[in-house]
Amino acid sequence: MARVTQRRPVLRLSLDAEPRRRPDRLAGEEPLEIRLEGRAWSVTMRTPGRDFDLVAGFLVSEGVVTGRDDIAEIGYGPGVNPDGTASFNIVDVRLAAGVTPPDPARARQVYTSSSCGVCGTASIDAVRQTSVFDVAADPMRVDLPALLAMPDRLREAQRTFDATGGTHAAGLFAIGPGGQNSRRPDLLDVAEDVGRHNAVDKVIGRALRDGGLPLTGTVLQVSGRASFELVQKARMAGIPALAAVSAPSSLAQELAAESGMLLAGFSRGRSVNVYAGSERVRT
Amino acid sequence: MARVTQRRPVLRLSLDAEPRRRPDRLAGEEPLEIRLEGRAWSVTMRTPGRDFDLVAGFLVSEGVVTGRDDIAEIGYGPGVNPDGTASFNIVDVRLAAGVTPPDPARARQVYTSSSCGVCGTASIDAVRQTSVFDVAADPMRVDLPALLAMPDRLREAQRTFDATGGTHAAGLFAIGPGGQNSRRPDLLDVAEDVGRHNAVDKVIGRALRDGGLPLTGTVLQVSGRASFELVQKARMAGIPALAAVSAPSSLAQELAAESGMLLAGFSRGRSVNVYAGSERVRT
Repeated sequence: MARVTQRRPVLRLSLDAEPRRRPDRLAGEEPLEIRLEGRAWSVTMRTPGRDFDLVAGFLVSEGVVTGRDDIAEIGYGPGVNPDGTASFNIVDVRLAAGVTPPDPARARQVYTSSSCGVCGTASIDAVRQTSVFDVAADPMRVDLPALLAMPDRLREAQRTFDATGGTHAAGLFAIGPGGQNSRRPDLLDVAEDVGRHNAVDKVIGRALRDGGLPLTGTVLQVSGRASFELVQKARMAGIPALAAVSAPSSLAQELAAESGMLLAGFSRGRSVNVYAGSERVRT
Repeated sequence: MARVTQRRPVLRLSLDAEPRRRPDRLAGEEPLEIRLEGRAWSVTMRTPGRDFDLVAGFLVSEGVVTGRDDIAEIGYGPGVNPDGTASFNIVDVRLAAGVTPPDPARARQVYTSSSCGVCGTASIDAVRQTSVFDVAADPMRVDLPALLAMPDRLREAQRTFDATGGTHAAGLFAIGPGGQNSRRPDLLDVAEDVGRHNAVDKVIGRALRDGGLPLTGTVLQVSGRASFELVQKARMAGIPALAAVSAPSSLAQELAAESGMLLAGFSRGRSVNVYAGSERVRT
């Protein structure tokens, strides 16, 4: 249980060849229950591995913690499998004194905290109200060749994807305020997960636990599309730039523009679309 | 507000050409609040359009309703935008007399209802306990050429993707118990959304509202990967087969196998991988 990949038999059917049975590796997926002070807060499906990073990153995304010292303790809870072994599917967090736990009645309702009830504007307002880091003030600029090199660098580091073809990835690249804009940008961390959001949370969570927030001077490259929630997660961690291999949504674009962030999409090696913050790209 | 696509300016940067600014279409993304009997139940980000289908399908997926008559009334709630216009971002559902509303304390905690606490086995047990349709008893079998034709047929029908490149799609194909296994299978419905789960919920919700559950004799084709939740949604609607263009997860495979469902992945025109229920494919 709780493995990053799992081996399963697969039957390959083709118009051009005989059926063939062979073992295959699938991306692991297991539920994870997140507890705060011993009480259930959230359940998410995730690829096992880096669970404490995932939980820490999720707490950043939800505006509960902003620094390493906000978490007093993090560890596996008492879950067991049917065979009696530890399940490693419950993570319990004890927050530091003075850190306000999220209101359970408001869990995941960040989108509805503004005057217009529930709409895109309210969602953006809610993120603004819960952000403590000012990404707009980060002077980070990235050279176009460095930005274009990120998807390939990320792809090289995706070991679980190599084995399964079934995981999303998030990579965090360091771009100094003036320097380190080579064609081989510095990949600080990479995480993979069956869930797009989880991969980002794992990267952000490790940075939090290393005392590295806000993530000024970095670019977050993701393997798929850019949704509102991915832009939100980047902003909550103080990351001034999100680049996606595929398309952004309308609300992702709005939040990035409102936040003073770079939002790039369809980043495909020799060209890229910039949807917000184009002044952050040096051509 | 609340449009399927939205036009935005984009700056195209390339190593091979001058920067070029042009309008682009992005997939619409807006929050949707789902209310039961006027009380907030869930908030999800979605692409506007077919909102009642989305909500009805979500209620099927969560085990709240199984037939058209379980929903007494469904309509937009009172949300307004900052400019005073209706937001169309709140949907209120009144359940029929005798239909048990979900316990708010257990919302989305379907994965933790078994003896082992929280683990893959518990997740599968929870789906088994809430399913009313017996997909294993459905004799549906599909010819290999028909199965292989589905991704292209789905792709042809993805109008929002054509405009934006930013949406997932789900297509429902009719496969009679013995017949209709041509190379051009009958596409009953297709839905698109920035969220993979939403696209599936829209297809299932329309079927529910048309009185068409359980969806015996059908195949659900999705544009991306196959997660546990997508298999769960198919099973809850009585769909005996899920085919994905990309990879399944380990828990998706386990649930499909336990359910007697066909689970196909990497369906790419001339070949496909079968992870569960291979007896349902006629070669």
